[in-house]
Amino acid sequence: MASDKPFQRAPLMSLDEALDQVLGQARAIAETERVAILDADSRFLAEDLISELQVPPQDNSSMDGYAVRTEDLAAPGVTLRVTQRIPAGHHGSPLMAGEAARIFTGAPIPPGANAVVIQEDTKALDSPTNLNAVPEVLVNVVPVLGQWIRRSGEDVKKGDVVLPKGTRLNPASLGLAASIGRAHVSVVRKPRVALFSTGDELVMPGEVAPENMPPGAIYNSNRFFLRALLMRAGCNVTDLGIVPDNLPDTLKVLQLAAKDHDLVLTSGGVSVGEEDHVKPAVEMLGRLNLWQISMKPGKPFAFGQLNAMSATDAAGAFFMGLPGNPVSSFVTFQLLVWPFLMALQGLPQTQSKPYLLQANFDLPKPDKRREFLRVQRNTAGTLDLFPNQSSGVLTSVVWGDGVIDNPSMQAIKQGDWVRYFPFAEWLQ
Amino acid sequence: MASDKPFQRAPLMSLDEALDQVLGQARAIAETERVAILDADSRFLAEDLISELQVPPQDNSSMDGYAVRTEDLAAPGVTLRVTQRIPAGHHGSPLMAGEAARIFTGAPIPPGANAVVIQEDTKALDSPTNLNAVPEVLVNVVPVLGQWIRRSGEDVKKGDVVLPKGTRLNPASLGLAASIGRAHVSVVRKPRVALFSTGDELVMPGEVAPENMPPGAIYNSNRFFLRALLMRAGCNVTDLGIVPDNLPDTLKVLQLAAKDHDLVLTSGGVSVGEEDHVKPAVEMLGRLNLWQISMKPGKPFAFGQLNAMSATDAAGAFFMGLPGNPVSSFVTFQLLVWPFLMALQGLPQTQSKPYLLQANFDLPKPDKRREFLRVQRNTAGTLDLFPNQSSGVLTSVVWGDGVIDNPSMQAIKQGDWVRYFPFAEWLQ
Repeated sequence: MASDKPFQRAPLMSLDEALDQVLGQARAIAETERVAILDADSRFLAEDLISELQVPPQDNSSMDGYAVRTEDLAAPGVTLRVTQRIPAGHHGSPLMAGEAARIFTGAPIPPGANAVVIQEDTKALDSPTNLNAVPEVLVNVVPVLGQWIRRSGEDVKKGDVVLPKGTRLNPASLGLAASIGRAHVSVVRKPRVALFSTGDELVMPGEVAPENMPPGAIYNSNRFFLRALLMRAGCNVTDLGIVPDNLPDTLKVLQLAAKDHDLVLTSGGVSVGEEDHVKPAVEMLGRLNLWQISMKPGKPFAFGQLNAMSATDAAGAFFMGLPGNPVSSFVTFQLLVWPFLMALQGLPQTQSKPYLLQANFDLPKPDKRREFLRVQRNTAGTLDLFPNQSSGVLTSVVWGDGVIDNPSMQAIKQGDWVRYFPFAEWLQ
Repeated sequence: MASDKPFQRAPLMSLDEALDQVLGQARAIAETERVAILDADSRFLAEDLISELQVPPQDNSSMDGYAVRTEDLAAPGVTLRVTQRIPAGHHGSPLMAGEAARIFTGAPIPPGANAVVIQEDTKALDSPTNLNAVPEVLVNVVPVLGQWIRRSGEDVKKGDVVLPKGTRLNPASLGLAASIGRAHVSVVRKPRVALFSTGDELVMPGEVAPENMPPGAIYNSNRFFLRALLMRAGCNVTDLGIVPDNLPDTLKVLQLAAKDHDLVLTSGGVSVGEEDHVKPAVEMLGRLNLWQISMKPGKPFAFGQLNAMSATDAAGAFFMGLPGNPVSSFVTFQLLVWPFLMALQGLPQTQSKPYLLQANFDLPKPDKRREFLRVQRNTAGTLDLFPNQSSGVLTSVVWGDGVIDNPSMQAIKQGDWVRYFPFAEWLQ
């Protein structure tokens, strides 16, 4: 009765190998667009930003005070004549021996001056001691040569590449672009991603009230976090909804999605179960690799390509199928889809850098697969484990602020140093 | 000649005291709005989200395989009759002795079953051994009671507060809201912030080409990163541009800004210099405290209030004045304005948690002020220092991925453990 044949298990692929394959196939989007820097936060530079000027343009004062000649101030208590006044945005004239220039933050240093004395170290004299009644200032310190002077080109030199192509812009880099006079920059066209879910059990929130949910039905949650993650990754998202679990509908939506998209992303429907129609549908329209990745949560992951639908189409679309369990879907997105989307936008491949932190828990029975444990950094700086690590429990990702990347079969004892990736940096 | 009076320096305030005062005055915005969860990423919940159902709703299978009764499977190699088939979204009927139910991920466990055997541990028999030709499956393992069953309410129990009021929504929490059937949530109205800069030396990027910049002129960069930071903080921003350095213009823009805004934010113009017109203008329209904070970069910071302009106005607007140096402006925003904006939106006050990491540099001459050094985490996990820590060098913030919070007068030697705050978590 019992079959002699060994029970077949698909060979497991390592996560690193899966990531290599995914990134190896990603082609950076070639189309670019010119956008105002006011609208460029989180976009990816499609050009090297080269400065045509020095920042700051001239030597200037970093404080409010007096521009002076250190030659005049060998000892404290010297009085200087204040012969000019230089607000920011104005130029002074050469400073002569015995003179000081009233100067304000950002104003150019006048020729001849070689230091700035801050006003708190001076006293403007009410009654000038000189015959011509030129205002005077008493300097109470001995200034150091060059003090409080910001040098021309200290921040940026003319000809510097201030931001290389591939940079993901953020508030600070937008400020830097503005400081070299750029009002517009060339950025990579946003990836266009079509998103759908499969599963007859799925109901859209808002369509059926909790008390009226049919037996076996659950609300679709994956689409909502996947859409938000895609938008944070800089994508334009086409939401194609929930597709019924049958082949004709699946084919139809894939054909639609393959047009004008860089990536078709789905969750559910790519396991080895009989009910999965996504796999055969993708294979009819292109090609598909179904991977079993040695990771937890995660494991099933589909990666393939949908052919161009017509001669006028672009090159077709990539296809990625995530597991249906919400935590598996979330973690797989971060580890495989996110880097792929960064590569599509031209970000140079960078290794994420874990923090080495101490575990505040025991994990006596580690998994055979490399595991991404949802944890929260506590006030002592060590990591607390979410008690339920089931891949169905989305709460673990909401409660957690990151994951521990735990190697296969690695038991953890309280106090052990582990590799921690905060969600905040992961999703930069 | 020299005055006998001691030279006055404003007393320095600690950053913690400044933050306490700022947060102590922040009133959470009372107005709320109902938004679709598709549009709710990064918004702040104005209600406790309470679940009206269990997630998952029923005990269900976490794998594709067979629902079984452990009573039937005391030893490996038992053959069971497959009397039903339960896809996700469908309900089974009670399982009798000697029976198995073909079951798929997410499908409800039928009454009587108490474990799931994954399909890789089974073999569907081609030729049933029973007279009625009911399909059969050979089970090659001894299942553990409850295995591969996800329990009803494992993620969320009916009545649970899944997300408390004040939560800042993110992709994961939006997924959780969807999983309890919420299509809309009540969120806090976005803070309305008016932003302007002062300084006759400032030129808008795009208005004058680098080669035509007048002497002493510099491009306005602060407005661009401040606007991007405000938007990341969840604000609606009114950009009022660059205001000329004179009192009438400053008064006019403040009066305009005070209407219909929660906060008026400016950079530059709040030092003790004679050229600053913002301070007297704010004092004419409300009240202003000019602080000297013991921090570097930073130090001058203005915090005040602009009175309501008419009886129909709201309560008036808060006023915050940042230093004009770009790095000072950036860091002061993060340390004082960001927490204030979070408080306006109802986020419970939380202490940021530094990482303790090792310095990969020496800082032999520490500052008298608490210093926020721009650093980058290297591949060894230690921190490299940006060589130029001048508050005028915005590059330090672009290059850096975070700051070290270094106490006053604390020298640093390579290998010392320091408190590191990554920008990524700071600006969550």
